Order: sequence, then structure tokens, then C-alpha cells
Amino acid sequence: MIVEGLDRSFDLIVIGGGPAGYMGALRASELGMRVALVESRKVGGVCLHQGCIPTKSLLEVSSLIQKTATPTNGLYYDPPKIKHDEVVAFGQSVINRLHQGIKHLLKTAGVMTFESSGSLLGTGKVVLSEGLSPLVLHAKNILLATGSRPKSFPGLPFDHERVIDSSDALLLNPAGKKIGILGGGVVGVEFSQIFTSLGGSVTILEREPTLLPGEDSELVSILSRELDRQGVVLKCGISIRDVVRTDQNVSLSLKPSNSSTESPPEDLSFDYLLVAIGRVPNTETLGLDSVGLTVSTGGFVLVNGSGWTGVEGLYAAGDLVGGAMLAHAATHEAIVSVEHMAGLNPPPNDPNTVPRVVYTHPELVSVGMTLEQARKKGFQAILKKFPMMANGRSLIHGDRRGIVKMVVDEESGALLGFGGVGPGLSEILPVATLAIGLPDGADRLSHSIFPHPTVAETIWDALKSR
Amino acid sequence: MIVEGLDRSFDLIVIGGGPAGYMGALRASELGMRVALVESRKVGGVCLHQGCIPTKSLLEVSSLIQKTATPTNGLYYDPPKIKHDEVVAFGQSVINRLHQGIKHLLKTAGVMTFESSGSLLGTGKVVLSEGLSPLVLHAKNILLATGSRPKSFPGLPFDHERVIDSSDALLLNPAGKKIGILGGGVVGVEFSQIFTSLGGSVTILEREPTLLPGEDSELVSILSRELDRQGVVLKCGISIRDVVRTDQNVSLSLKPSNSSTESPPEDLSFDYLLVAIGRVPNTETLGLDSVGLTVSTGGFVLVNGSGWTGVEGLYAAGDLVGGAMLAHAATHEAIVSVEHMAGLNPPPNDPNTVPRVVYTHPELVSVGMTLEQARKKGFQAILKKFPMMANGRSLIHGDRRGIVKMVVDEESGALLGFGGVGPGLSEILPVATLAIGLPDGADRLSHSIFPHPTVAETIWDALKSR
Repeated sequence: MIVEGLDRSFDLIVIGGGPAGYMGALRASELGMRVALVESRKVGGVCLHQGCIPTKSLLEVSSLIQKTATPTNGLYYDPPKIKHDEVVAFGQSVINRLHQGIKHLLKTAGVMTFESSGSLLGTGKVVLSEGLSPLVLHAKNILLATGSRPKSFPGLPFDHERVIDSSDALLLNPAGKKIGILGGGVVGVEFSQIFTSLGGSVTILEREPTLLPGEDSELVSILSRELDRQGVVLKCGISIRDVVRTDQNVSLSLKPSNSSTESPPEDLSFDYLLVAIGRVPNTETLGLDSVGLTVSTGGFVLVNGSGWTGVEGLYAAGDLVGGAMLAHAATHEAIVSVEHMAGLNPPPNDPNTVPRVVYTHPELVSVGMTLEQARKKGFQAILKKFPMMANGRSLIHGDRRGIVKMVVDEESGALLGFGGVGPGLSEILPVATLAIGLPDGADRLSHSIFPHPTVAETIWDALKSR
Repeated sequence: MIVEGLDRSFDLIVIGGGPAGYMGALRASELGMRVALVESRKVGGVCLHQGCIPTKSLLEVSSLIQKTATPTNGLYYDPPKIKHDEVVAFGQSVINRLHQGIKHLLKTAGVMTFESSGSLLGTGKVVLSEGLSPLVLHAKNILLATGSRPKSFPGLPFDHERVIDSSDALLLNPAGKKIGILGGGVVGVEFSQIFTSLGGSVTILEREPTLLPGEDSELVSILSRELDRQGVVLKCGISIRDVVRTDQNVSLSLKPSNSSTESPPEDLSFDYLLVAIGRVPNTETLGLDSVGLTVSTGGFVLVNGSGWTGVEGLYAAGDLVGGAMLAHAATHEAIVSVEHMAGLNPPPNDPNTVPRVVYTHPELVSVGMTLEQARKKGFQAILKKFPMMANGRSLIHGDRRGIVKMVVDEESGALLGFGGVGPGLSEILPVATLAIGLPDGADRLSHSIFPHPTVAETIWDALKSR
């Protein structure tokens, strides 16, 4: 895109229009900067168009199907007629509305948006590759925020028909299909529930001994039992020996991950294989060598706590710097970077304050440290637990299998960590995150008045338990 | 009940086993007191057996019926078969489980429970009226926590058949019935949604010009439109001229509340009339005069911020002291009283930190001050708003009519108040309550990382809005 008479000089150029890029651009504009935003696709990024929003929209549908499947409270439903194109269109309508909102905000803020990809051309310069002829923009500061894309399994490229990624999965009608999901992380687990409730037969294949590696094992075990109960087949601790993709299906040969003996391989065949083994950063075409930057082995841009790359005026935020690779972390990182550019002194990014959610039913959430992590760091930490089974609102929601766990520093009354499995816990996370930021968060929560009945009360009950 | 060889002397006698009574007893036991709990009915009180829990259980059913009534997301449901006895039994099963839990906690804590009503017999003495012969218990401290009961309309006593209270309403099958609800407070509004979704035709009759007098008028107006959309007929600003109850129905003659002109009366007839115009404290038979205590004109016991009545060792907590008349406020008041007895120095009760919820769909919530209240108190307060329409999770939940409102002290960065209408906002209230207790709560929230997508993000978005 060529804009006649355009002043090509900015205070900030943002490359990438996802949750890091557009929110960074808006914050910069608010701080008085003249901002260019370079994005070749739609603003909003993967999160809005292929990630958080469409998956949560499908999970809402899945939740309703599950709730009406068994008559537990006097309501007897026949199974619903599912119009899959409308299920997808519902998510798309939410996306469209939010997309319009972001465009409106950018326009109102005076952010100049370029529909192009962009790459560095030395310090303070960005070249836009699309349009009639290359256009070079200049700025004192540049924020890299090009995000990430799904990682393919070695030797098995995405064909987007049988071997699919999470974007393809959004459009797939799983009814009556056999679907393998390679990878038991957040994406794999969320889609397992979506596909199952929409009528698919789902098997999750995970190399590690449990789903959701890195999350608290007790919480993972509760959620795993729940998925199993819902009909998802879980195969953890397995490796792929061989994959064969035909026109009709994808066949896999499995063996145990850590088996020294030659056990006989297990063969499985699926109509579709969703590969959800992680994401790779979009850093290859950023022109990083033009400023002398090298990336990590995984391809990530290395930054300090303010998102600074070490090159004058060059920052990066979001998935391409690695870490949590979550939309809200990306947004936060971008704001910290922009405030740092502006000479404000924001606290550096702290992974300990980034909440994590698996949006299944029930949800699995966490923020801060586990008991083990806290003790390793030298805290006199204790664990406080409370079961959903003793919480009125959870019972009313039909959920009695979950639990909340609080990691508390007895000495100071600080809250060090929070995790749980239960209905709607994502909405309760912010009170734990806020409390973790206080010197006496656990004490304050235990003196706070929680509305009754709520699921949130489990936090208070856990803290009061002995 | 007579217990042979019983030591009739305690550190604390609690009269009433609701949320104030049993939680006060548990806290006292935890602090090392020898505690007697006197309750003539089931422990758990109105909240558990006829209030919070059964109504929220019915509202859960009502929510599901509403969600499945219109195919907005690709799922087409036929109307469910409603087995009303099972709807009621579902709530009862939740009640039973929680009731067992409370009994277990009291037993484990060593609280001695007397199944009797009790009244004061002078300072430090309580007489139990049930059993073979009166039994007198002694204690240094006494906590009055006998709660409240529904108030009847003057000249129209409850007959529990046509003129019903909220306890009767829990068992009523509203399908095909015309139901009038006298009083547009929380109870009336919640039941209007329950009855409507279960097939009743509902009219709310409220004397004040709007529903939910005392709540923020913008929030009330959003919820009122929503109820109207759901089919509830709202008649606000009316007075009852006349009521006639026959075997078959209840007929009312209405006139405008504030009309000086003689407008023609409007006549309405209902199968049932739910009277929900407030609650009266259970203080008549407490023997208050034996210790020289008088009650307020409404019959409430007067206490200071620690729940102390002014009589040595005599405290009161919960509905019978008036105020918010909410379960969680009652629990908090009781704990403050007990800690005060124990010589601890708990902060006094502060109505500003008591959250309020109307558990409709969407929910209406509030805590702290409105903008007007804050400015009256001399704060340089400003209002920050954010619409649910711009929030991804709310759109996914199918709710785009709500809003959140934050009252912020610009000078200090304190959060002074929070209110909203939206899906599941009750679970989000605790983060606002916690923030209101901090000197810089609004600032801290705006630097906190909220998980995406959540309804809770509206708090962050509101604070960031200009």
C-alpha cells in the first residue's frame, strides 16, 4: 500500500497486529507517540481470528451440549439438532464484532495501519514488502510482535485436509469422525472436548506421562478423569514410531515413550490428525540479521524484562519472545515495552503474575507458584485446599469433582500461588492474581467478604481451612 | 433436649444456627472457646434451606431453559420436558449435602448443638424452651443470630396457598399460572425469572418508580429491559388500593403511588401472589427485656461495629441487626463479634465492603460506593465504564447488553466502587472487593494481568478507557 504524501517517519513502528501489536500501538498513541502498525492480515491476530475467541466460542457450544445431555436437575432434553455451519458462523460473528472494535480503536487513536508484512532494514527502519514498490518507514522505536504459528510434526507437514492444525480444526465438523490429537497441551485438550461433544471420537496422544505437562499434577489428574468420563481416549507416555497418511486417513504406529524393552507397537487410524505440539515464532523473515540480532535455538527473540532486544530502540513482545505464549501475556509485555520506550518505569515482566487457563468444562487454572516451586525458592509455604464438593454454587452448577489449591507463605501472610479445577474458575483468577501482587494477599483475602453463593468462596474456605 | 450430667457453662452461647450462628460458633471453637449452639430447626438457616441455595438452584435451571430457548449458536433444541418435582429435588439434594457438611463441621469442632429455641434470661443466661423441662445455659458471651422471616403485607396475612412467601415459592410449580409478585427487590426479581422460565406469567408490582430501589439506576434499567424482554410484566410506581383473596385467586386493585389525581384503579387477578416486600427480624421472643435491651422501630437489635449490643458479653449478628441482610454479611459480622469477644482486634464491620448480587441472568452486582455517594463524601471521583458488547467472553456467552462501572479516586488511584450487569459477575465481585480495601486498588488492577478471554477483563478495559 502506497500512501501519497505520507510522512514516513514515526515515533514507533509496530510489526504485527495481534494482542501485543495492536495493544502496544494503542498504548503508545495514548502516550502521545505517532504510531505505525504493520500487519499483512487482519488486526486482532491469531488470538482473535484463529485462537482464543473461536475456540472459546466452540467450547461454549460444547458446554451447552454436555449440560443438556444428562437430566440431572429435572430438565429432560432431546439431543439438539446441530447445524455445524451455524456453530462456526456464531464464532465468526463474535470475531467480526471484536475485529470492528479493534479497527475502530486504532482509527480513533490515530494509529496509521499498513496492510503489509514488514521487516527490519537496519536500526530504526522497516521495509514494507507488499504494494506497488517497497516502502521504507523510519522510527526511533520498533516493536516486533509477529507472533507464532503451529509447529508441524517432523516429517509430517500440514496438508490442512487430513493432517490439520488448530486453525483447520476450527472449521472441522467432527460428527461421526475418528480424530487423533497429537499433543496433550492446552490446544489439544480443549479441542478434545469440542470434538467429543460435537459427535467425534477423539484420542489424545501425548509423549509425556500426563496431559498438560508443567501444570500441577493433582489438577491435571482431576481434569484427565473428567475428560475420560466424557469419552476422550487418553494415551499418554507414547511416542510416534511411524505415520502414514493416505487419501482417506492417517495411520499411526505408537510405542511407549520410555520403554527400553521392544514392546509390540500399537496401530491406530484416524480420519483426521490434529497436530498440536506447540508453536514456532514468526521470526525468520523479520530481517533480524540486518540489526545483528540472533535468535534462540527455538527461533525466539531474546529480550530483557522490559522487552528490549539489546539493539537501540528495538523491542519485542508476545509469542515471538517465547514464555507463556498467551494473549494476555503478550498484551502486557507490549504495554511494558511501550511504557519503557516512553521513559516511564513500568515493573519488569514477571512470569509469576501471568494467569493460565484451560477453558474446558471444568476449567483448569493457575497463577503463581506451586507448593514445590515456593519451597524451592525458600518460602515457608503451606498448602490450603478446598473441594468443589463442599461449595454450594459448584454443586448447583453440577460440578463436584474440582478443587482449589492456595500456596501461602505462613510467615508473611502472602499468597504465592493459586490453582484449581472447577466451573468458571477463569473468572475467579483475577482475585488471586491481584492478591499475589500484595505482601499480605492471603491474609487480606481471608478478611474479605465473598458473595454467597459463589464458586469464588472456595478461595475463602480454603484459606480458613486447617 | 436434656443432656444428663451436662456442664451447663460455656464460653459462648450462640442462639440461631444460620450463616451468622454456625460460622460464629465454628470461629469461636477455633479460637479455643467452649461453644453451645441453640437452633430449633436445621442448622444452615434460611440461607441454606429456604434462601440463597434453593433459589440459585432454581435460577440455574431457569438459565438453562433460557439458553436453549433460542437457537443462537447452531444448536436447535426442542423445549425440555420439565419434571417439576425433580427440579425441586435437585435443589434439595444440594441442600442436603451442604447441611451434612455443616453438621459435620460443628461436630468436628466440638460445638455442642441444642435442638431448641432459646431466649435470654438475664445477662449471661439462656433458657431453652423445648424439651421435658426448661434448661438454663450459662456463658460469658452470647451471640444472638436468630435471623429474619418474610414480612407480610398489612391486612393480608400469608395463607401459604394463594398468598405465599419466598419459602412457599420454592415449591410452587408455576407452569400455566398467573403469578403476581408484590415487591421488586432481589427476591421478587429473582423469582420473576424463575417463574417465567418455568412457564408462569409473572407481573412484578413495585411501589417505588423502579425495581431494586437503592441499586444504581443505570444498572437497574439494563436489567429491567432484560426482564421485560424475557416476558416479565413490570409495574413500578404503584400502590395497592385493595386486595381480595378468594379460594381460586387473589385480586388486586392498583393505583399510581404518587398520583394526586383520582386516576381510575387498575384491577389484576392472579392465581398466586408472592409477597416479597422485605423481612422482619426474629427478635420478639429473644427475651431482650430481661437484659434491658430495646429494639429499633423495625424490631432490629442495635449494635456497634463489632456487633456489641452494649450489654456485657451480649452480641448480635446477621439479619436481626438489619443492614444488608445477606448471608455473607451475617457470616462476617458473626466472625467479627466472636473475634472481638476473644480479645482480638478485628476491623469493625464496614457496609462499604459488603458485595451485593441479584442472581438473575444476567446478574446485577455491586460493592462499595456509586459515583454520587463518592462525590458526596468528598472524593474527586470519576466513573469508568465498559460495555459487555465489546467483551469477547460476554459475546460468547450470548450477553451483549450489560456493562461494568468503576468509581475511581483519581488522586489516590483507589477503587471506591464497582457495579455491573453481565453474565456471572458475582464471581468477579471478589476482585473488586479486594481492590476496594487497598489504598491504590484501581491502579493495581490496571497493572494486573487478566486472563483472556474472560468477562473479568471488562474491569481492566474500563480502567484503561478514557
